[in-house]
Amino acid sequence: MFRFHDLRILCATVALLSACTATTGKSFTTTEIVKFDSPWAMAFLPDGRLLVTEMAGVLKLYDPKGGSTGIISGVPAVVHKGQGGLGDIVLHPQYPSNGLVYFSYAEAGDGGVGAAVARARLVLDEHGGGTLADVRVIWRQVPKTSGAGHFGHRIAFDRDGKLWISSSERQKFDPAQDMGSNLGKIVRLNDDGSVPADNPFADRGGVAAQVWTLGHRNVLGLAFDSHGQLWADEMGPRGGDELNRIERGANYGYPIVSNGDHYDGRTIPDHDTRPEFRAPVISWTPVISPSSLAFYDGALFPQWKGNAFIGGLSSQSLVRIEFQGATAREAQRFDMGRRIRAVKQGPDGALWLLEDGTNGGRGWLLKLTPPRP
Amino acid sequence: MFRFHDLRILCATVALLSACTATTGKSFTTTEIVKFDSPWAMAFLPDGRLLVTEMAGVLKLYDPKGGSTGIISGVPAVVHKGQGGLGDIVLHPQYPSNGLVYFSYAEAGDGGVGAAVARARLVLDEHGGGTLADVRVIWRQVPKTSGAGHFGHRIAFDRDGKLWISSSERQKFDPAQDMGSNLGKIVRLNDDGSVPADNPFADRGGVAAQVWTLGHRNVLGLAFDSHGQLWADEMGPRGGDELNRIERGANYGYPIVSNGDHYDGRTIPDHDTRPEFRAPVISWTPVISPSSLAFYDGALFPQWKGNAFIGGLSSQSLVRIEFQGATAREAQRFDMGRRIRAVKQGPDGALWLLEDGTNGGRGWLLKLTPPRP
Repeated sequence: MFRFHDLRILCATVALLSACTATTGKSFTTTEIVKFDSPWAMAFLPDGRLLVTEMAGVLKLYDPKGGSTGIISGVPAVVHKGQGGLGDIVLHPQYPSNGLVYFSYAEAGDGGVGAAVARARLVLDEHGGGTLADVRVIWRQVPKTSGAGHFGHRIAFDRDGKLWISSSERQKFDPAQDMGSNLGKIVRLNDDGSVPADNPFADRGGVAAQVWTLGHRNVLGLAFDSHGQLWADEMGPRGGDELNRIERGANYGYPIVSNGDHYDGRTIPDHDTRPEFRAPVISWTPVISPSSLAFYDGALFPQWKGNAFIGGLSSQSLVRIEFQGATAREAQRFDMGRRIRAVKQGPDGALWLLEDGTNGGRGWLLKLTPPRP
Repeated sequence: MFRFHDLRILCATVALLSACTATTGKSFTTTEIVKFDSPWAMAFLPDGRLLVTEMAGVLKLYDPKGGSTGIISGVPAVVHKGQGGLGDIVLHPQYPSNGLVYFSYAEAGDGGVGAAVARARLVLDEHGGGTLADVRVIWRQVPKTSGAGHFGHRIAFDRDGKLWISSSERQKFDPAQDMGSNLGKIVRLNDDGSVPADNPFADRGGVAAQVWTLGHRNVLGLAFDSHGQLWADEMGPRGGDELNRIERGANYGYPIVSNGDHYDGRTIPDHDTRPEFRAPVISWTPVISPSSLAFYDGALFPQWKGNAFIGGLSSQSLVRIEFQGATAREAQRFDMGRRIRAVKQGPDGALWLLEDGTNGGRGWLLKLTPPRP
């Protein structure tokens, strides 16, 4: 027999029957909704259901109304290794009419592994699941390399329907400055994967034509504010996590400058030694390990309109960011007691988080709502 | 709060911590190992790990040693509807050298839905999961049709490396007698999907060339005995479940004859009225709803060597079959109290079952071992 001497086990068990709720401080109530296996990203459908990627290569559809979880079949083969696997998922801005979804994943190929972005038509069935039809890879990291770190592969659409992808430097450092590679870059594409003619390096051709900004390390957060300005958060090396304001053609300096240092002990000159590189708007040492970025404009937390939230992995935190023009500051940090992998605003104005399911994390989908009075 | 007044919930909960065991009669002990979502089929790898298909389109790899479950990514889009979804999975006889696996599933296309069989290279990673590489569809039901029943799509290899597929009649009746369709047939192929020149109807060309036997309804069990003889169990209509000895070129009579009747009340002449059609070796009325078929030759249950086991869905039973030459009889029926979806002998000589996860079933992988003294 067993006893419920561990509240977490009790909570996980009770959650099969009814959600388990805890109030963190006084800012919000956190409710454990349902568990996933190493979830990485989520996207809300117009009907309020939630697509959730699991790193091993499973795409799930969760219905908050009924509490049921279905499978979306047809995900291509992913390399689930290290930080690689099925990654981000976003809806096309015209999803209600064209049914297109875009997702990223680590794929194997000549030279090793690399991130890829595919688009597909999401065909839902009447049983809470569905399939991906007409899957087409529209972008790939060049070149594929060894190792299993720093894919980045966060995806965002802007209001003009352009597709933005963070392509991290695969822990290879120098490619972030090499315009013959699209590693360590933020790229801008048309929604079919072609290169817009007005990209800053379009006249150079090749993968350089895709590049909007360069000199990035591991960009896991990518989101537009209400003015259409793109922001990106970036994992620094030892120290030097960054929030960057993404500006056309700018070079953010990695690995030439960083407010952190290499893990092997070699120092990296700070940003202020080389003003020709764009410096972060916020730099964190000690680090927060930013996994994700979302702007908030909902009604449930009116005091946070226009703020952004960053999910923190090693910091096990949710970081609230306030903005003023081109500057920003960390306004508040909530200790979540769990590694936060993803953050999104739901259609209900609640904040939804995914708990990292690796390193002992348990993969909960969490819903943050105003505290009960 | 809640109370454990339901032993099943308690058992399911405790199973998170340690397996839950029950002794059924005195023949074997049944142990609940791990749960799956609507599992359909399983195949043991040479290292003792177990591939399990889930109907929604997820292929899992379970490690009985460590108790961990990984994902095999790269399964094509499946239609998960009615009886359709991801279906059977088997290893190529030379799997240790070529790494090939074969699997069946319901796919969408012109005209509706149909079963397909694909082969792929199983690439395992070091984290308990893997991917399907070089996925190629090598066989399809012709034609695709409406509805979501009677796919069949059980797969077996014989000792010559030929591939056998049960192709059920999609609840369309007459195609089982129509050689312009491969529905309601058992087909025999080379391992690349091509048609062997020595098939009984090879000279007719088209899909007829694939056919080994015809006149089948819904064949969900397909297995070779130790003499290389193929046996198939088949869901009858209202009454008339069958175990058939599969003989080259034979016609098993459906829908012209059956020991059952149509669900709409129309009678079907019995097998003994039309001796030109091959009659079943065993016929069941009331039905057992056979889902699967496996021969046993292990050491753990020496008294059952040479017997076969049929998993029963509506009968919630495991049926033991004894053979004598070309005849067979039901020797024993174990009331499992659950819909049995699949049965396999494990490398350890235990019998492994999958509980059906639909209709209130709970999808347990079950291990049957000799009872404790």
